[in-house]
Amino acid sequence: MKDLRIIVTGGTIDKVHDPRTEGLSFAPDGATHLPEMLRIGRCHFPTVELLMLKDSLYFDDADRAAIAGAVAAAPEEAVVVTHGTGTMGDTARFLAPRIGDKTVVLTGAMRPFSLYTSDGEFNLGGAVVAAQLLGHGVWGVMNGRVFAAAELNKNTEQGRFDV
Amino acid sequence: MKDLRIIVTGGTIDKVHDPRTEGLSFAPDGATHLPEMLRIGRCHFPTVELLMLKDSLYFDDADRAAIAGAVAAAPEEAVVVTHGTGTMGDTARFLAPRIGDKTVVLTGAMRPFSLYTSDGEFNLGGAVVAAQLLGHGVWGVMNGRVFAAAELNKNTEQGRFDV
Amino acid sequence: MKDLRIIVTGGTIDKVHDPRTEGLSFAPDGATHLPEMLRIGRCHFPTVELLMLKDSLYFDDADRAAIAGAVAAAPEEAVVVTHGTGTMGDTARFLAPRIGDKTVVLTGAMRPFSLYTSDGEFNLGGAVVAAQLLGHGVWGVMNGRVFAAAELNKNTEQGRFDV
Amino acid sequence: MKDLRIIVTGGTIDKVHDPRTEGLSFAPDGATHLPEMLRIGRCHFPTVELLMLKDSLYFDDADRAAIAGAVAAAPEEAVVVTHGTGTMGDTARFLAPRIGDKTVVLTGAMRPFSLYTSDGEFNLGGAVVAAQLLGHGVWGVMNGRVFAAAELNKNTEQGRFDV
Repeated sequence: MKDLRIIVTGGTIDKVHDPRTEGLSFAPDGATHLPEMLRIGRCHFPTVELLMLKDSLYFDDADRAAIAGAVAAAPEEAVVVTHGTGTMGDTARFLAPRIGDKTVVLTGAMRPFSLYTSDGEFNLGGAVVAAQLLGHGVWGVMNGRVFAAAELNKNTEQGRFDV
Repeated sequence: MKDLRIIVTGGTIDKVHDPRTEGLSFAPDGATHLPEMLRIGRCHFPTVELLMLKDSLYFDDADRAAIAGAVAAAPEEAVVVTHGTGTMGDTARFLAPRIGDKTVVLTGAMRPFSLYTSDGEFNLGGAVVAAQLLGHGVWGVMNGRVFAAAELNKNTEQGRFDV
Repeated sequence: MKDLRIIVTGGTIDKVHDPRTEGLSFAPDGATHLPEMLRIGRCHFPTVELLMLKDSLYFDDADRAAIAGAVAAAPEEAVVVTHGTGTMGDTARFLAPRIGDKTVVLTGAMRPFSLYTSDGEFNLGGAVVAAQLLGHGVWGVMNGRVFAAAELNKNTEQGRFDV
Repeated sequence: MKDLRIIVTGGTIDKVHDPRTEGLSFAPDGATHLPEMLRIGRCHFPTVELLMLKDSLYFDDADRAAIAGAVAAAPEEAVVVTHGTGTMGDTARFLAPRIGDKTVVLTGAMRPFSLYTSDGEFNLGGAVVAAQLLGHGVWGVMNGRVFAAAELNKNTEQGRFDV
C-alpha cells in the first residue's frame, strides 16, 4: 500500500495542560504527540514531520505557504496534515489549487490528545485511511466524515465537524 | 454522505478488566463500548446494533451466518462490524460471497478500549471513514491499513495487522 | 473506623476541558467528579457534599465562612475539603480558629481529574487517610505531604505543594 | 518531614496488558510503574527500590524474608511496600514481628495502574501519607482505610479492602 507522510502544524490535537497557568499550550520542549498517537494506534508506517506547532487561529498566508511547500517537498503522494480546527477549512482552500498530484488530508481534534478521551485518535485513524483511499486533492477528515476542501467547516455550536 | 451501521460482535475491543478474576471478559451487564467510543470521537451519525459479545476464537459458522444475516437486514449500504482479531480474516472470507451490494468493513482492537491507550479509537475512526469511501465488498481496517478480505490476517508476532 | 465527609468547593480538581472555548471550566451541569474519583479508588464509605464549584482565586470571606459553616454542620468528626490550589493555604488559616473538635483536611489537584494522569486521585487518597489519622485541627494534604495550616503554600515554581 | 522508601514487590498494581496473550503480566523489560505514579502524583521525595516483580499468590516465606531484609536494610524509618492483593495480609503478619523500629505500610491495587482508572494512585497516595503519620509497626492502606496487620484482608466479594 501507499507510503504516507504526516506533516504536523500544531492545533488543539497537540496541546497540553500547563498546571502553572491552568491553560492549554504546546509542550515546553516543542514536541509533537503524533509518534505516540501512532504507537497507540499500532500504526508503524507513516513518516512524521514536525513543521511547526501553532494555534491555527494565528496562521497567516506565510504559514499556509510553508505547509504547501512541505507538501510539495514530500516524496510521498499521500499526506496527512494535522491542523487546528479554527481555520482548517481556510487552509484546505488555500492548499487546494497549490498541491498538484497529491492527496492531502487535514485533520485535528476538538480535545487535545494529551487530555485522554480525545477525538484525536479517531480522527487520525480516519485521516490515515482516507489519505490512502482518496484521489488527488485536498480533503478534511474529522469526526467520521470526509469533507471536500470547499465544505470543510467547524460546527462551533455542536463542537464538531459536520455535514 | 452515507448513513452507517455498526454491528457489534464482541472481541478484544469491547472487553473489560475484571478485578476479581484478574482477567479480561465482557461487561457483566452485557453492554458494548461503541456508543462511548463514538461519543469520544464526536461522531454522532452511526447507528449501533449489538448483535453479540463473543470472543472470535469461539466463533463458528452459525455465528458468522448471524453476522451475514445482520448485514443483509441492515437498511444501510455501509456497515462496520466490530470483531475479535483472532479470526477476523476468517469472518471476512466467510462474508465476502454472501453480502451483495454492501460495503462491509471489519475492525477491532489489540488492546481493549476500556484499558485506555487502545488502538480501538484509531481503528474505528479508520473503519467508519473507509466504509463510506470503499466500494461494495468485504474489507478489514486495522492499524492504519485497508485489507481486502483475502489478505486480512493478524501479524501475531508484531501484535498488529500489517501488509 | 471513622465516618468521613467530603465537602466539595471546586478548584482545579473538578474542572473540565471545554472544546468550544479551549479553556478549563466547571461542568455545565454543575456536577462534581468526587463520586467518580471515589469509585475509581474503590472507596465506598465517604459522604460527598457539594457545597459550591468555584475557582479559589475568587474566594472571599463569605465563601470561607460558608465552608466553616458546612464543617460545623457536618455530623462527622473527620472532614475532607476539596479546594483550589491558589488560595488553599488562606482558607486553611481562616478555618483553623473556627472549626472546634474536628479534623479538617484540605486537598485538591494541580491537574484536573477529568484530564487523566492527574494528581487528584493521589492527593484524595492521602487526604482521606490523613483525615482519619490526624488530630483535631486544619491540615492540608498535597503531593504526598501533610501540612499544618500555617505551612500550607503552593510552590508555584515547581507546580506542587512542597516542604 | 520524614524521608520515605517505596519497596516494589509486584502485584496487580504493576501489571500490564499483553496484547499477544490477552492476559495481564509484568512488563517485558522488568520495569515498575512506581516512578511514573509518583510523577503523576507530583510527589518527588520518595526513593523507589525495585525488589522483585511477582504475583503475591506465588509468594513463599523466602520472598517474605527478602522483603523483611529490604525493610531492615532501608535507611529510612518510613517504608511503603507495594504488594499483590492476594496475600497482602499474610505478608503483613509475617513482617509484623520482624521489622523493629520502622513504620511499614503495604499497599497495591485491584486494577493495574497501566489500565487507567485504577485504584493504584488513590491507594499509593494514602500509603505515602500514612507511612509518615503512623507509629512503628506493619499496616495496610487500601481503598481509603488503614488496617493493622492482623486485620488486613481482601473482601473478595466486593473487590476491595474493607472493614
